[in-house]
Amino acid sequence: MNNPIAFPLDQPELQFVASGDALVRRSVLPSGVRILTERVPGARSVTLGYWVAVGSRDEIPAEEAHDDQWAHPASLGSTHFLEHLLFKGTPTRTALDIAIAFDSVGGEHNAATAKEYTCYYAKIRDSDLPMAIDVMSDMLTSSLIDPDEFETERDVILEELAMAEDDPSDVAQERFFEGVLGDHPLGRPIGGSPETIRAATREAVVAHYRANYRPNDLVITAAGSLDHDQLVAQVQRTLEAAGWDLSVEATPVARRPRTPALITQGKALQVIERPIEQANIMLGVPGIVATDERRVVQTVMNAILGGGMSSRLFQEIREKRGLAYSVFSFASSYSDAGAFGLFAGTSPKKAPEVAELLLAEFHTFAEDGVTADELSRAKGQLAGGSALALEDTDTRMSRLGKSEISSGEFIDYDAALALLAEVTPERIQDLAKELAAGKVSLVSVGQADEAALSRILSEG
Amino acid sequence: MNNPIAFPLDQPELQFVASGDALVRRSVLPSGVRILTERVPGARSVTLGYWVAVGSRDEIPAEEAHDDQWAHPASLGSTHFLEHLLFKGTPTRTALDIAIAFDSVGGEHNAATAKEYTCYYAKIRDSDLPMAIDVMSDMLTSSLIDPDEFETERDVILEELAMAEDDPSDVAQERFFEGVLGDHPLGRPIGGSPETIRAATREAVVAHYRANYRPNDLVITAAGSLDHDQLVAQVQRTLEAAGWDLSVEATPVARRPRTPALITQGKALQVIERPIEQANIMLGVPGIVATDERRVVQTVMNAILGGGMSSRLFQEIREKRGLAYSVFSFASSYSDAGAFGLFAGTSPKKAPEVAELLLAEFHTFAEDGVTADELSRAKGQLAGGSALALEDTDTRMSRLGKSEISSGEFIDYDAALALLAEVTPERIQDLAKELAAGKVSLVSVGQADEAALSRILSEG
Repeated sequence: MNNPIAFPLDQPELQFVASGDALVRRSVLPSGVRILTERVPGARSVTLGYWVAVGSRDEIPAEEAHDDQWAHPASLGSTHFLEHLLFKGTPTRTALDIAIAFDSVGGEHNAATAKEYTCYYAKIRDSDLPMAIDVMSDMLTSSLIDPDEFETERDVILEELAMAEDDPSDVAQERFFEGVLGDHPLGRPIGGSPETIRAATREAVVAHYRANYRPNDLVITAAGSLDHDQLVAQVQRTLEAAGWDLSVEATPVARRPRTPALITQGKALQVIERPIEQANIMLGVPGIVATDERRVVQTVMNAILGGGMSSRLFQEIREKRGLAYSVFSFASSYSDAGAFGLFAGTSPKKAPEVAELLLAEFHTFAEDGVTADELSRAKGQLAGGSALALEDTDTRMSRLGKSEISSGEFIDYDAALALLAEVTPERIQDLAKELAAGKVSLVSVGQADEAALSRILSEG
Repeated sequence: MNNPIAFPLDQPELQFVASGDALVRRSVLPSGVRILTERVPGARSVTLGYWVAVGSRDEIPAEEAHDDQWAHPASLGSTHFLEHLLFKGTPTRTALDIAIAFDSVGGEHNAATAKEYTCYYAKIRDSDLPMAIDVMSDMLTSSLIDPDEFETERDVILEELAMAEDDPSDVAQERFFEGVLGDHPLGRPIGGSPETIRAATREAVVAHYRANYRPNDLVITAAGSLDHDQLVAQVQRTLEAAGWDLSVEATPVARRPRTPALITQGKALQVIERPIEQANIMLGVPGIVATDERRVVQTVMNAILGGGMSSRLFQEIREKRGLAYSVFSFASSYSDAGAFGLFAGTSPKKAPEVAELLLAEFHTFAEDGVTADELSRAKGQLAGGSALALEDTDTRMSRLGKSEISSGEFIDYDAALALLAEVTPERIQDLAKELAAGKVSLVSVGQADEAALSRILSEG
């Protein structure tokens, strides 16, 4: 597959062979349920995912409710709250039953709430796939959201937020998105805040559940040792047994608009004082959207600037100067906004020097571009890394889900290599210049000289 | 393979078929170099490891030097320091060359220093295996340990220690081992302390390197898509090219003594005050050694008590009471000592209640034993989990290394199932009673009522 494969919402069946002789099949049921599988020769396990395209960005406080199909009145953090509650029982399974089902076969079973989707997943041996479908269809369709369980889980989530608050790099990252993306919904933390979690009502979370967990929202993806037809049949059977009427025809919900949003920066400088050993410095700028054709260029740029031990940031800041143990760059792209960031953890007294170096490396990159050697190494890095990642059924399950939900196209290994081959030093520098022209936001968590950081920011 | 396979130090060649039709081969070269491989059908990657059986426990301050073959005068943390330095260049490769070699093929390349071994590893595509052997043989044999690089890396390690110090659960874990194992060398933190790292001299680290990185210390393991004979030939070629004389016959270094050491508890209660959101509570007792035949019993016990979402700790502390997000138990076994522990992160004001519950669950477990249902679920959990883990070449590479270095026997999947089948409720309860009779050590990192914790400890 040298070209991306489109996933049209109105095409009922599609199949092709992907890298590793994996057979990809996609069925869009008349009800709008989408089921995508990748049968991987030699695999003995299966990774299964149930996805809905709703994430923290879709929450809006009730008082701001409006007509946008993507926005649902829900207190902040309620998408993540809901994800927790789906593990807490249905009319036929207690929370313990659900836990036992996966624990007793040694499976992994968890969920992730992101800014633009929620994914429930399991990795099991192929013989346990029917069990996994039974339980996950039940969880997704029939959660009780029992009032007592709701209160207990509120406390669990408050502990989860407290744990994240005690992780300085987590805090830096959440504040970073607030700084770069301002009041855009993508700038908010995924889990909400202790205040919004304390304020969340069961009614609002249930409404969120009803509004977003319907046949034409649901995407099921699986990769590994499986049979597509059997999986589709069992999914249908289990959803119908749970009371979903799949005879009502519906088109899958439209994918999100891809037009870049207008971004207004939040606070340019956030210095969060903490009496800890390191200053955690994160700085960056608005980035590109997930469907931007320069996405692959950004991936290469990130690899060269701060993506590995041979990257510029690692070499300059850690290897040459010994200023940090953890130092890297990263790119996050969403449907209508993105961010590009640089991070280093350093001693408080070295924080201004490190912030200055991060910024200088970023600007030098944009001004001087990259060498042919660097580009060729980065291409090798991304090709090899992808090949290794695709050995894992998790990666393939996840690739199917993101392709369906976010971009609407599937980019196989060879197609990715073809896109990678077209990346030139010129395209990288053009993108780097555009990014480096963005407004820089800087976060420090720890002890750092605020005046010095402020000066660096205004001079940078 | 229904029985464990012994790995005698004086047996030059051995081969057998392991689970998944993997061909295991083991060669002990006349020089004492040991090479173990597992050729996994269908794999396209290889995970390669270079091991030496030296870890933080083998460091002894110069003033305590004595004649024990396992103890080397070296400042605390110097094993980990040395591990860092091996990435910093040889006569033919700079640090950047080493980083580029792996980055440019998208490989993973890293190392881990543990209490009883150091392992350098890489995961690459099979076509990149010859490169990986070239580079890793060079690193292991020919590190320059350049004085300037030594100073720069000292700063990097100080940053790494600072980062760990800012992670409350890391701190709890390090202090936990100090509490349970007292002044036994296994009780010490792996990385040393800022003081010992500042005090480390290049001479001592070089001496440590010379003393422990020799042919009869080296164990090389690999799993995935590979050919044993080719790998052995290339390892020999590269070690000899680096100047190692493999014609000198030597027996591999003896494995560590397995007799349980006499343990004297450190501080029973350590309350580390920090102005953070959670109190991180870790408590536990001395455990069993790695070659104890009850090791599998301990694994089952841990699964039932705190090893998954259906475990007692998760159900009691998180699901029923909402007191924690992260709660689990764990077992760590080494050659002559071990520890069994329980952990939960909770709000400061709930810390005494959580500590009391952890201790109560531990004691109830020992007093009342386990049900047939719990045992059967745990067996399923461990069997399924192992099967899934063995899909990954990392797990197989690591299993080979630990079998060779630590136990001297290889327990394949079927042999593990056979051992698991022999675990009874009686054996679990016997072990639990023995463990629960041990002196309890408790660590809290965060804000917690020290008097209340002290009371719980003295009453428990």
